[in-house]
Amino acid sequence: MELYEKILQGNVRAASRLIRNIEDDFPQAKESIAKIYPYTGNAHVIGLTGSPGAGKSTLTDGLIAAFRKEGKTVGVLAVDPSSPFTGGAILGDRVRMQRHAEDPEVFIRSLATRGALGGLSRAVGDSIHILDSMGKDIIIIETVGTGQQEVEIMNYADTVILVLVPGMGDAVQTLKAGIMEIADIFVINKADRDGAEMLKSEINILLDMALAADCDWRPPITRVGSKEDKRQFVKGIQEIALQIMQHNEYYSGNYKALKKRQRRKALFEIQAALQGIVMQFLMKRLAAENSLEDMIDQVISRKSDPHSAAREAVLKYLGQTLI
Amino acid sequence: MELYEKILQGNVRAASRLIRNIEDDFPQAKESIAKIYPYTGNAHVIGLTGSPGAGKSTLTDGLIAAFRKEGKTVGVLAVDPSSPFTGGAILGDRVRMQRHAEDPEVFIRSLATRGALGGLSRAVGDSIHILDSMGKDIIIIETVGTGQQEVEIMNYADTVILVLVPGMGDAVQTLKAGIMEIADIFVINKADRDGAEMLKSEINILLDMALAADCDWRPPITRVGSKEDKRQFVKGIQEIALQIMQHNEYYSGNYKALKKRQRRKALFEIQAALQGIVMQFLMKRLAAENSLEDMIDQVISRKSDPHSAAREAVLKYLGQTLI
Repeated sequence: MELYEKILQGNVRAASRLIRNIEDDFPQAKESIAKIYPYTGNAHVIGLTGSPGAGKSTLTDGLIAAFRKEGKTVGVLAVDPSSPFTGGAILGDRVRMQRHAEDPEVFIRSLATRGALGGLSRAVGDSIHILDSMGKDIIIIETVGTGQQEVEIMNYADTVILVLVPGMGDAVQTLKAGIMEIADIFVINKADRDGAEMLKSEINILLDMALAADCDWRPPITRVGSKEDKRQFVKGIQEIALQIMQHNEYYSGNYKALKKRQRRKALFEIQAALQGIVMQFLMKRLAAENSLEDMIDQVISRKSDPHSAAREAVLKYLGQTLI
Repeated sequence: MELYEKILQGNVRAASRLIRNIEDDFPQAKESIAKIYPYTGNAHVIGLTGSPGAGKSTLTDGLIAAFRKEGKTVGVLAVDPSSPFTGGAILGDRVRMQRHAEDPEVFIRSLATRGALGGLSRAVGDSIHILDSMGKDIIIIETVGTGQQEVEIMNYADTVILVLVPGMGDAVQTLKAGIMEIADIFVINKADRDGAEMLKSEINILLDMALAADCDWRPPITRVGSKEDKRQFVKGIQEIALQIMQHNEYYSGNYKALKKRQRRKALFEIQAALQGIVMQFLMKRLAAENSLEDMIDQVISRKSDPHSAAREAVLKYLGQTLI
């Protein structure tokens, strides 16, 4: 049986292997993705993001439990930008989710990728397809950090959850990072701390400013207490799980909004793929012709600037075909 | 007089205009960059990064004052990822640096960019060249957030400063984001808080693990007290300014390390330029042929997957030239 067939049957080892091949950028991995792709599009993809230390892993853990209780299968992708220090993803945080490790219907993976130029975004997209084709009902993408690429990764999600914590100046900081604009659900975590009410007011003011008058979905704001107060914590989690389903229903019942979201997701993924393919071809060609070293020398000696050198190379190798 | 000539004479309005044209991706802007580029390479570029709320703007403000006291001219680029909420950069934080607003030898700009696909990285690179050609001795790039792209932007810096704060789990979080590996100088800010000593030990342990035995530069770790205790704060800032100069001297006296850093910077900028040029050509071509809409439809209907659709388009439009 081929690798992709095993994945379609829900085989966890096969799925892990393909994700590893995607991270390592093996060319054959793309063929497997093409084969599973017709079987995708059924999972509900949740993006969960927020500042470091906002308690994202704890919330993800709670959501896994809530969805499992409803009989739904769950996949989790924890996105850690690559660290040369460790040569890959750091698993520390994942320990919090280990109580689900024995559950065959829960699949948790940390995702890292070496190399820049959008490699991480592409690896996330492909990994979502893998979990989707395995038959996971819910896929949670958890991103560490609040940078530009983390915002971009949220393009893959059907529902984006932004986790904030009182007293960290979070509202303004995440506003800066451009994340607030893409959130479908706001969560105020550790809401037993001082400032939770003020944070909620801040978010509401920002929403009032930003949302169009005819907007059909106003992002709800849910407060979740610390996990030490288990009853309150579970209550908060259940509320978020309900809002996720409501957000999903809102889209299901709104053809125009659904189409728009589907096109946005597809465009984002096509652009990321185009970028990866073109750059791979071009860098290989430049290396083969030793052009890259020449270009670097020219730029360092100020005989050419980076843009002109790049433009010259593109004209030389892509010539009339493209321009 | 042409725009670039005014910039070479240090004209602030001309520089602001070119930066704005770069942010808006005007094609003519690249011609101006090509013209000023021969006059660049003289500034010392400092990258300053760390978690939201780490106090980066306060430190930048302190560093500006320290460098001005030595008679050096300073440029600051505060990098805010684009926010659709505000349509641009948020200037709130910059208020802290306003005491330098009247000083003609200090140039401060917030930098934002609409659109993804590495646009921000390219805008930062070009803006550094603009400040460099204006004759600024020191250029500080301050990035908000701790994401993948923020790490990439640090590739433009000669000296990377990582700002950490006690009690935020910062060491582990920034380790995850891959920032710790690229730091040349560590700053523990708000060091009067509990946990400063422990944070220092953590950083030292991580450095022991990571640094090669024959490594010539071990990143120093400096503690800076809160700005309320002005004497301690200024003392800490002076120490950092000294370390920046020492780091610069280390490179000046080490030909191999200097060459390596220059090549890394040039390669990064050439790749970013290649990516921008090729993607612009390709997306324009696809839009003109209405191919992009077809591709999106195919991907949504699962008749093709994003990678295969992208590959087909690349083969069709770049054909034999590239492959």
